[in-house]
Amino acid sequence: MLTFEGQKIQGSANIVAKLTSLPFQQCQHIISNVDTQPSGPSGGMIVFVCGNLQLSGEQHALKFSQMFHLMPTPQGSYYVLNDIFRLNYA
Amino acid sequence: MLTFEGQKIQGSANIVAKLTSLPFQQCQHIISNVDTQPSGPSGGMIVFVCGNLQLSGEQHALKFSQMFHLMPTPQGSYYVLNDIFRLNYA
Repeated sequence: MLTFEGQKIQGSANIVAKLTSLPFQQCQHIISNVDTQPSGPSGGMIVFVCGNLQLSGEQHALKFSQMFHLMPTPQGSYYVLNDIFRLNYA
Repeated sequence: MLTFEGQKIQGSANIVAKLTSLPFQQCQHIISNVDTQPSGPSGGMIVFVCGNLQLSGEQHALKFSQMFHLMPTPQGSYYVLNDIFRLNYA
């Protein structure tokens, strides 16, 4: 599930639809830092990212923070269970 | 476990020691937004907070973002399994 600027979206199809509907074509992520922690006995992992977004044609970067909760699959990979994104307005 | 500005601290005694050693006496949290999501079959909950910190005697607020991963106890309350804190420097 994704919480994007407070909007709650559930299911991979809905999340893809949201992300592809964002009103810009190019967006560069400049990562300031990434913190990770194991998330408990189920073998998950929390990833916490802060940085800047530079939209094409915009002069100023936007600060953002985002967290992902990755959970293991039986096949040995991970899927995104939780995703929360926020801009940090100045 | 706590990741505070990249510093990894494990165990409640160590975390309390870190938080009580921070070099200020008063700090006001001005919360901009709080997002929450359930974190999976173990009944946990992810809380994602953004806002400003106002230290006493400082003119400018500091922007921060922080996430908590709360896990249920058998007694029906929650404990903090994961805590990640970052300042968002301008």
